Amino acid sequence: MSNQPAHPTLFIPGPIEFDDAVLQSMSHYSESHVGAPFVAVFGETLSMLRKLFQSTDPSSQPLVVSGSGTLGWDLVAANLAEPGDEVLVLHTGYFADSFADCFETYGVKPTQLKAKIGERPQLDEIEKALKEKKYKLITVTHVDTSTGVLSELQKLSEMVHRVSPETLVIVDGVCSVGCEEIEFDKWGLDAVITASQKAIGCPAGLSISYYSGKAIESFKARKTPPGSYFASFKNWLPIMQNYEAKKPSYFATPSPQLIHALHTSLTQILSIPLSERFAKHKAASQKIKQAVADLGLKQLASNPADQASGMTAIYLPENVKAAELLPSLVKKGVIFAGGLHKEIAAKYVRVGHMGVSVMGEGRGDVEKAIEALGVGLKEAGYQKA
Amino acid sequence: MSNQPAHPTLFIPGPIEFDDAVLQSMSHYSESHVGAPFVAVFGETLSMLRKLFQSTDPSSQPLVVSGSGTLGWDLVAANLAEPGDEVLVLHTGYFADSFADCFETYGVKPTQLKAKIGERPQLDEIEKALKEKKYKLITVTHVDTSTGVLSELQKLSEMVHRVSPETLVIVDGVCSVGCEEIEFDKWGLDAVITASQKAIGCPAGLSISYYSGKAIESFKARKTPPGSYFASFKNWLPIMQNYEAKKPSYFATPSPQLIHALHTSLTQILSIPLSERFAKHKAASQKIKQAVADLGLKQLASNPADQASGMTAIYLPENVKAAELLPSLVKKGVIFAGGLHKEIAAKYVRVGHMGVSVMGEGRGDVEKAIEALGVGLKEAGYQKA
Repeated sequence: MSNQPAHPTLFIPGPIEFDDAVLQSMSHYSESHVGAPFVAVFGETLSMLRKLFQSTDPSSQPLVVSGSGTLGWDLVAANLAEPGDEVLVLHTGYFADSFADCFETYGVKPTQLKAKIGERPQLDEIEKALKEKKYKLITVTHVDTSTGVLSELQKLSEMVHRVSPETLVIVDGVCSVGCEEIEFDKWGLDAVITASQKAIGCPAGLSISYYSGKAIESFKARKTPPGSYFASFKNWLPIMQNYEAKKPSYFATPSPQLIHALHTSLTQILSIPLSERFAKHKAASQKIKQAVADLGLKQLASNPADQASGMTAIYLPENVKAAELLPSLVKKGVIFAGGLHKEIAAKYVRVGHMGVSVMGEGRGDVEKAIEALGVGLKEAGYQKA
Repeated sequence: MSNQPAHPTLFIPGPIEFDDAVLQSMSHYSESHVGAPFVAVFGETLSMLRKLFQSTDPSSQPLVVSGSGTLGWDLVAANLAEPGDEVLVLHTGYFADSFADCFETYGVKPTQLKAKIGERPQLDEIEKALKEKKYKLITVTHVDTSTGVLSELQKLSEMVHRVSPETLVIVDGVCSVGCEEIEFDKWGLDAVITASQKAIGCPAGLSISYYSGKAIESFKARKTPPGSYFASFKNWLPIMQNYEAKKPSYFATPSPQLIHALHTSLTQILSIPLSERFAKHKAASQKIKQAVADLGLKQLASNPADQASGMTAIYLPENVKAAELLPSLVKKGVIFAGGLHKEIAAKYVRVGHMGVSVMGEGRGDVEKAIEALGVGLKEAGYQKA
């Protein structure tokens, strides 16, 4: 189904397999970053991001900057909080620890609210924490790529607005944007940060983020200048506004090739209703999760309501080592990822199921992943009890 | 000479025209960023950068991070200086002002030593400045893309080491690495920051930099933590060391496609002696500069010794407007850039001559640029006095 050279199918939770047309866009001939043809493509890309976030509020702002997803943390920490500000970080795995580290770098004081591995902080605990202290913002990892735990955004955001209306609601959507439902305006979110290489389906190299008018106002009301230069809203906001208005503008040179690829992937994503895309990811996810259960294995996320649609984190049987299983799967033509949560890294594996592997008709990627996992475990000596 | 779709030839001082094989590498199929095949490619890429910088000192360190060239300023300001440190910024155009802004963002105190437009600060002035105050580091823009002024690095570095041996010598080489001679070890440089999309010949999206052992030691001796998270040496140094040792490692997801393209471009660059590459750039530059003189026009950089080899900034005749000339050149199939130095932006244009446009046999790019400029000026009513 693909014109790409034969290669093992990538089932890690990002980067994912990419569509042929997206990869083709990566080799676009060179253009001026301030010339009319590229400015139009970048402008359209920003406008399409509004649709991806189901946002129509003109005061909201998309941002696309060369960098990794990690840069999104700097964008939030250096612009939406000030040194000395208290922020509440909901912890569902590895990535909350890193986000907290990032806040500390900028003199912001994070308080982490942690759940057991595979679980998520509950609304009542979060409400209690919000009532104890004034927090500039709260962060939630929509899907923690280290655990596959899905957080609930809408009820969380409603509660934050009720209990602490000045607190900004910040979502780390690196492993969720493009495969999990997000209604930015309706849910009252203030920022979603993400990256290109997961469910958005464009090669790595772009930090993509989206901000509410309230978040932008909060930035403008800062008493101190932003703590970063490359990640400064002061430098980027006028550039993004100009590109979207199809006016050339310069702060730092964007990557025309990556923007072309993002334009292609967003055009594909928006060619069908988003609800259909999310439903297909959910169905593929259910199929994989059922296969995992049928093999007698457990997920890190034990509660079905907390399970991500774009990835699955699976505890290995006691006698199977990830360091042996993963290479044997590569020989079967599929690449899974090892564990990332430091306390239990060796005890589980992760499988991503996002983008073209789920949406591409007739590829059979999901079936291939399930088949390989079953055979790999059997060869490793595992038998369902 | 190229398999690319017909398009106007890009003669801006970056991004430049890219070779077919480099663009083809941009559409490489998706790989795991921690899988053995990609780790090997990234490791080789880092090793090739050592050769590009003509460096053999094992204590030096190459760094390749997703981002724009601008990110290099954050890497220097957040890691190699501490809040309150004094730094000396040599000014040859737009980019020194921005580097100074970046330092201020991180609480570092820049002093700018400015020259007239088209000139550069002289060694005796710089020596005097270094004797007046203790500077943590000195920065020099090797080629300022706004003016085409080339700075002299070797004598500068020798003087700094003699007069103020603790001061780190930092080079902004965004518009010079790959087309101007740089002998990192021999000249005693401590950092060169650059980007992928100019003379290195790889699409934009990578911040590339190189540090001496002394610079790394200076980082390790910091009294305060680095001022950036995404640009922190603490986060990146172990990752780069692991990749070069062909060990998987993770801080933020790199862009496998961009790294493949960089691997291809560096392989091409290193396939002939660097001296030959620099000589070809110099010859092409001379040809263009002679044509500019033959047209009766002047460069911003009036002294031949201060003229860059990879670009030329040309004052327009009084009756010719850049806003009219540049679109007329696009119709002739060539894209030049407008002025960028804010004081005189409308009065000049810039032409880049780097990479495949200079090195590619039989392309005729340089001749095409010269021809178009002559015809364009004539059509605009200009006649040599």
